Amino acid sequence: MNNLSIKELCLQMARKAKEASQLLALVRSDAKDRWLQRSAEAIEQNVPPILQENARDIEGAEKAGLTSAMIDRLRLTPARLRAAATGLRQVAGLPDPIGRVRDGHVRPNGLEIQKVAVPLGVIFFLYESRPNVTLDAAALCVKSGNAVILRGGKEAIYSNTILHRLLSDALRVSGLPADAVQLVPTLDREAVGHFLKLNDYIDLAIPRGGESLIRRVAEEAKMPVLKHYLGNCHVYVDRAADLDMAEKIVVNAKCQRPGVCNAMESLLVHAEVAERFIPRIGAVLSEKGVELRGCAATRNYLLFAKPATEADYAAEYCDLILSIKVVPNLDAAITHVNHYGSKHTDAIVTTDLSAAQRFTQSVDSAAVVVNASTRFNDGFELGLGAEIGISTDKFHARGPCGLEELTSYKYVVIGTGQVRE
Amino acid sequence: MNNLSIKELCLQMARKAKEASQLLALVRSDAKDRWLQRSAEAIEQNVPPILQENARDIEGAEKAGLTSAMIDRLRLTPARLRAAATGLRQVAGLPDPIGRVRDGHVRPNGLEIQKVAVPLGVIFFLYESRPNVTLDAAALCVKSGNAVILRGGKEAIYSNTILHRLLSDALRVSGLPADAVQLVPTLDREAVGHFLKLNDYIDLAIPRGGESLIRRVAEEAKMPVLKHYLGNCHVYVDRAADLDMAEKIVVNAKCQRPGVCNAMESLLVHAEVAERFIPRIGAVLSEKGVELRGCAATRNYLLFAKPATEADYAAEYCDLILSIKVVPNLDAAITHVNHYGSKHTDAIVTTDLSAAQRFTQSVDSAAVVVNASTRFNDGFELGLGAEIGISTDKFHARGPCGLEELTSYKYVVIGTGQVRE
Repeated sequence: MNNLSIKELCLQMARKAKEASQLLALVRSDAKDRWLQRSAEAIEQNVPPILQENARDIEGAEKAGLTSAMIDRLRLTPARLRAAATGLRQVAGLPDPIGRVRDGHVRPNGLEIQKVAVPLGVIFFLYESRPNVTLDAAALCVKSGNAVILRGGKEAIYSNTILHRLLSDALRVSGLPADAVQLVPTLDREAVGHFLKLNDYIDLAIPRGGESLIRRVAEEAKMPVLKHYLGNCHVYVDRAADLDMAEKIVVNAKCQRPGVCNAMESLLVHAEVAERFIPRIGAVLSEKGVELRGCAATRNYLLFAKPATEADYAAEYCDLILSIKVVPNLDAAITHVNHYGSKHTDAIVTTDLSAAQRFTQSVDSAAVVVNASTRFNDGFELGLGAEIGISTDKFHARGPCGLEELTSYKYVVIGTGQVRE
Repeated sequence: MNNLSIKELCLQMARKAKEASQLLALVRSDAKDRWLQRSAEAIEQNVPPILQENARDIEGAEKAGLTSAMIDRLRLTPARLRAAATGLRQVAGLPDPIGRVRDGHVRPNGLEIQKVAVPLGVIFFLYESRPNVTLDAAALCVKSGNAVILRGGKEAIYSNTILHRLLSDALRVSGLPADAVQLVPTLDREAVGHFLKLNDYIDLAIPRGGESLIRRVAEEAKMPVLKHYLGNCHVYVDRAADLDMAEKIVVNAKCQRPGVCNAMESLLVHAEVAERFIPRIGAVLSEKGVELRGCAATRNYLLFAKPATEADYAAEYCDLILSIKVVPNLDAAITHVNHYGSKHTDAIVTTDLSAAQRFTQSVDSAAVVVNASTRFNDGFELGLGAEIGISTDKFHARGPCGLEELTSYKYVVIGTGQVRE
């Protein structure tokens, strides 16, 4: 394929997506849900061919020398496919976000005003590694009435292609526009650049993956971007903390799943409880294999900790490493979090109501947590349903993004001949 | 000022705005409302000096050969200043959008989840001509807890400077951060480019003015932009329309204030009523001085109409000109609106419920209106309060943008030691 034809291909896909989105906006819930049910069945009925295609990706990944963690993310198993099918059925069970009247009232002149949820239109979704994201993203986009252009990683191309084919077949038999879900067929990186310029057709770009992918998209995109950076999440142990509770929360936030965005990366401890808390938490964490890096005060209580640098306080390790800092008071903790944090998820452990209030009001993060693990910032855990990512932006959507966050709205105004004076 | 110092000035202003926004986010409603009241008083008590500064702008505008319409927009009068002061008091009377719990529930594990409205942070607001926008924009931004950097047009610099000084003085005596409202002191266009790159400090850019200003901002900005393009608004007269009502609505939508974004630019008429409606509306409109441009079918009924080109159907005249097209059916009307329109405000006149439903569902515009004038798409008329503009975007905010649309939210999660299994 030469340059011109990649550009043309992208434009053609974007146009088809726009047309599909116009049809999809008017499709009833039951048709969308039937598609989800049929897709789930198709996954279950095609486990062997899916695994066969997945094996080709795994083989390629091994040849390319990908890490075992990456290969694990890439791997599909019968259990993972069953879970994916269940996920599709769960999305079918969620209420349709489209057409919901968010607000409404009647004006003194009799005009009826309704604020009605509508789809955004076309979503360009970029992702890496895990092929089951193909299913999640398509399910959430179509259920919310949006057409989606999927651009998966090259390492998952065989898996994504067969999954996409099953979704497409199910679209056709469900009477939905087949172009509602398209997979970019070329692996040329140039295609991404073309799509990011097509803001006349694409309403939103969602990059999900490493920071460099997200930065590239944010830099080049002419349409809005919903960004999901990793989290530099903090737990602050206040002087009024219940230290048993603090230990449980810190251990959970750091160790339960260290590679994810809502895991803790940095621990702040009030100076008045540092002597009692730091040696004890240090012992527990290092027993669990966590490497500790601390400020000078921390290292007074924890001789084996390495010194923490500025870079440590800004770091998102996604690993069993923790930076620790002793702070003189609550305000210093808040200032530290707002300076070094990533506006993702930050927690305070305290029994002091006014400290809790000050922390939740002053920390500028998508989720501020009192006396619980940072790991709860996730669509399912917050009771918001399936999510397409966790936004670290403040515009449009913040925190977990599910069906609701994939919608816009319009004002519907019903009159009886009213005109303006 | 050399290039380096303009760049430094912008960075310094953006930093100060960010600091002010962090303080402002925690300020109570009563303090913000006192500032609005004091600002209103300051305007009323300083009418002579304000008019004196305004006279300097008017003089400059006359020398520069600005049109009389532009000079009129620039002119302040005692009545306009009274209206502006009243506007500030109205904003003081609106409920504080910050801290409102938008949603909340308790999870099965006892975690309390609240979705709480918070400010966006720092807003860069660019505008032209009318100096009273300085007051409106500052009032809405600060009331919603945001710091604002105001960049007015060079033609209004003296007026904007004195109005800004009065607002700043009132901030100081009200105990609010003085940098909550800053006016860019240089007229160098380069400054705009610098601000648009400062996405670490500025959370949102709002350009309000001509299309070229908005396009430049959308093109250059590294932060989200809330765009307010003009409207190519339609009225579609269905075959089931009450033609008396249709006449009243068409005349109002076109003539009541032709220069604004929610005025009608294009009239679509169902073929079955064209013969009855077009001659009659043509006569009324041309009597009111409206120039008519129509398709071939239109010109069969309206011999004096000029032929309408493709460019006419795409045009936003903002003037007493109207394009007219006869369409064979409702779907053709919808397709025309979605193709040529600007997603702003489009109306149908019909007594047919299913036609009304199909139109409101299928037309992809910020406001879809049934049996009323397009002129109602405005924050006050929809009962939403003062507005900072009317968004033609679908992301974050659509249609009239007031206090609510200048906010984001955070999740506040309150636990009693919960951790994830």
